[in-house]
Amino acid sequence: MMRRLLVFGCASGIAAAAETDIASQRLVGAALLDGAAYATVASLTDQVGSRLAGTPGAERAVVWALSAMKQAGLTHVHTEPVRVERWVRGEAEAALVAPFAHPLHVVALGGSVATPREGLEGELVEASSFEELKALGPRVAGRIVLLNRPMMRNGESFGGYGDVAPLRRFGAVEAARLGARAVLIRSLGTGAYRLPHTGAMQYQEGVAKIPFAALAAEDAELLHRALAQGVAQVRLRLTCHLDGEVDSANVIGEVKGRERPDEIVLLGAHLDSWDLGTGAIDDGAGCGMVIAAARLIAQLGAPRRTVRVALFMNEERGLSGARAYAADHRAELVRHVAALEADSGAGRPLGFAVVGGAASVALLSRWAAPLSGLRASAVQTTEEAGADLIPLHEAGVPAFMLRQDLSSYFDWHHTAADTLDKIDPFELHLATAAIAVVARAAAESVDLLPRISAGHQQQ
Amino acid sequence: MMRRLLVFGCASGIAAAAETDIASQRLVGAALLDGAAYATVASLTDQVGSRLAGTPGAERAVVWALSAMKQAGLTHVHTEPVRVERWVRGEAEAALVAPFAHPLHVVALGGSVATPREGLEGELVEASSFEELKALGPRVAGRIVLLNRPMMRNGESFGGYGDVAPLRRFGAVEAARLGARAVLIRSLGTGAYRLPHTGAMQYQEGVAKIPFAALAAEDAELLHRALAQGVAQVRLRLTCHLDGEVDSANVIGEVKGRERPDEIVLLGAHLDSWDLGTGAIDDGAGCGMVIAAARLIAQLGAPRRTVRVALFMNEERGLSGARAYAADHRAELVRHVAALEADSGAGRPLGFAVVGGAASVALLSRWAAPLSGLRASAVQTTEEAGADLIPLHEAGVPAFMLRQDLSSYFDWHHTAADTLDKIDPFELHLATAAIAVVARAAAESVDLLPRISAGHQQQ
Repeated sequence: MMRRLLVFGCASGIAAAAETDIASQRLVGAALLDGAAYATVASLTDQVGSRLAGTPGAERAVVWALSAMKQAGLTHVHTEPVRVERWVRGEAEAALVAPFAHPLHVVALGGSVATPREGLEGELVEASSFEELKALGPRVAGRIVLLNRPMMRNGESFGGYGDVAPLRRFGAVEAARLGARAVLIRSLGTGAYRLPHTGAMQYQEGVAKIPFAALAAEDAELLHRALAQGVAQVRLRLTCHLDGEVDSANVIGEVKGRERPDEIVLLGAHLDSWDLGTGAIDDGAGCGMVIAAARLIAQLGAPRRTVRVALFMNEERGLSGARAYAADHRAELVRHVAALEADSGAGRPLGFAVVGGAASVALLSRWAAPLSGLRASAVQTTEEAGADLIPLHEAGVPAFMLRQDLSSYFDWHHTAADTLDKIDPFELHLATAAIAVVARAAAESVDLLPRISAGHQQQ
Repeated sequence: MMRRLLVFGCASGIAAAAETDIASQRLVGAALLDGAAYATVASLTDQVGSRLAGTPGAERAVVWALSAMKQAGLTHVHTEPVRVERWVRGEAEAALVAPFAHPLHVVALGGSVATPREGLEGELVEASSFEELKALGPRVAGRIVLLNRPMMRNGESFGGYGDVAPLRRFGAVEAARLGARAVLIRSLGTGAYRLPHTGAMQYQEGVAKIPFAALAAEDAELLHRALAQGVAQVRLRLTCHLDGEVDSANVIGEVKGRERPDEIVLLGAHLDSWDLGTGAIDDGAGCGMVIAAARLIAQLGAPRRTVRVALFMNEERGLSGARAYAADHRAELVRHVAALEADSGAGRPLGFAVVGGAASVALLSRWAAPLSGLRASAVQTTEEAGADLIPLHEAGVPAFMLRQDLSSYFDWHHTAADTLDKIDPFELHLATAAIAVVARAAAESVDLLPRISAGHQQQ
């Protein structure tokens, strides 16, 4: 008898465990077989397509999201206002002029100013880091800067991206401080298909705004070899420009809680995408997964707490949707008991990462335990669980994310090749199942994740 | 004593084997360590760049080849005239207009006519083979045809390409016979980076010439899904056009034979490339390898027969260089004792393939035996050993090729991403070594490959 207790726990524990197990099995089975997450991404990417915040595509996406959430059986489906800075991509052309002539495959980075209308031409200087750039000192003035740092492939974390992302974010500022006329950056990506990767960059008050474009890895290597022969001369023409602010929206829907409807488990993703592809892995996959996960939870019957789906506008160009949500729901954030963002592509699930300490890992590990059969139950800590959650975890909301296979994610990220075919339905549905199981556990759980404090690592 | 003979052969055999072994070792060691093949490709792709026959790039390539062969120590370096049809790529634009709007990534196929200046718009019909197309019958008239047949990845042969290539070659003719207005073809390639692959196509006397473009695999799948919703409407605008004939050239150089200088072992590659990339794997690699292999052979001292390097113009758009060579050297072809073409990329060597029967395989196997340490000594038969050799083996010249790893070749073939970085110098140098060892063996051999007869398979 004692032995049986050790193995199976007490009688009420058995009943609770059985309910959880059966619910998890139903969520996983339905996620893998009903095809809903993939069908949702397919409809967003094919029927809406690219949806850069501030463009007509983004407004079509808002209409689409309202419809998709209603079809999924969510309630209280509505929009919430977001202001968005509009940026027009225009045309981008570049060429190596000397010592030999080649076209360069470039795209403007989001937010960049234009070159003079006729373009600009200048001598190139190269650096692989800001330290190297600063060491060039006066040699940068009047030149075009090439920031050339290869990105490492890393299938399990964003570490490779994290290493190079500051060069894109701050490259125009750092180069302009030294008097550069323009900046070209080797695309942040791991592919080798002459694809430029776009992305966000920023200027700084009081520092000259200079044009900033990303070029294909192949062309960065060509420029490097050209420089090895002596002087390299480059031409660049960009017509991109800012064009005021426009109204846009986050889209929200819910599975209303049966006992504590005012306590919220938030499932987020971002509705906007970059404009070169159709935003399938970034972040159509996330939109499809969180809508489908909420649908699966609703099909099991109302959970104890409310599961809320939030599709944020404008993650890519400044998080204005996430900031609007945090501001408009300020009074309610104390009742946001957990928040997950799905913005890591469509790869198979590897486990979870939580902003917090040992207590957070322990509780999330219990919620994720049924996923061991999917090899997705491991939990680790993280400093950040998705860009759209930053305003929430700054307000103390416990934030976590699904870790997914990223092996090929950065081959396609922010390029014209971010299209539906990059998504393996089976892997997407495994990831959807993992989100559904843990989100329902959070919505049912007696215990709650610790709130995040300013020094959350020490909890 | 008997035992020694069995193990080491007779004394003169020992001496001959030792000479061959030492020569092979020197060729392999130098090929791997001197860096010449890679340096040669790098200079062609960086300093000349793209070189579509009939363009200024191709003429720069001719000047480059004369210089590169002289630097490599070849003699009798000269050009031979070739007439080339000039085709201007112009602009290509396409879009899915309904049931939803998307830009399509397209390139014109080489030789295609333009659309009307304002473009054309029409309803799409899809087929995955000519049989399917014909079965559509009257539904093709007035429509835009989508030829959508995925290409299989095949690391060791051209079989996957061979399966789809006829659709590109004859697609415009077959569609026009049924009254189509234009044709789009899913790119012949194995990559997934929204890259259209260009290539050759042809028209036929008496059949209407209709515009023909290749689109990225992703966009072919999008059109397929759009059609599944009912009617799909597509817009296409091409400004490509033919622009008369111009003079161009093959470039020839030699390592003169010491005993039988009028007997020729020919090492060919093609100097022209498609215009979207810089023609590194197709066929800068081949040019680099055959020049470097001839240089290595020359460094060992003159071989018994002449080793001749021929860089053919215009392989990609009609073989006019190869045909000019065969015509101009007609009287000499009977003394071409063997011909190899290097036009299979830059991958590691897997062995050889020869146009012929068992006797050809047996002799080539002896020549290739020293390469067993490189895992490159296996010999098989083939129907064709490179497009530029077709006019030669039609004239009886024994033709063979190096088989190379093609795993990633068709990811980049005929795209903007066919650039230097796709070449692994070590693999290129292994392949160069394999060519040098077998070419020198052919130039020294007492025995000769059987001439090719019309029914060469039966030899």
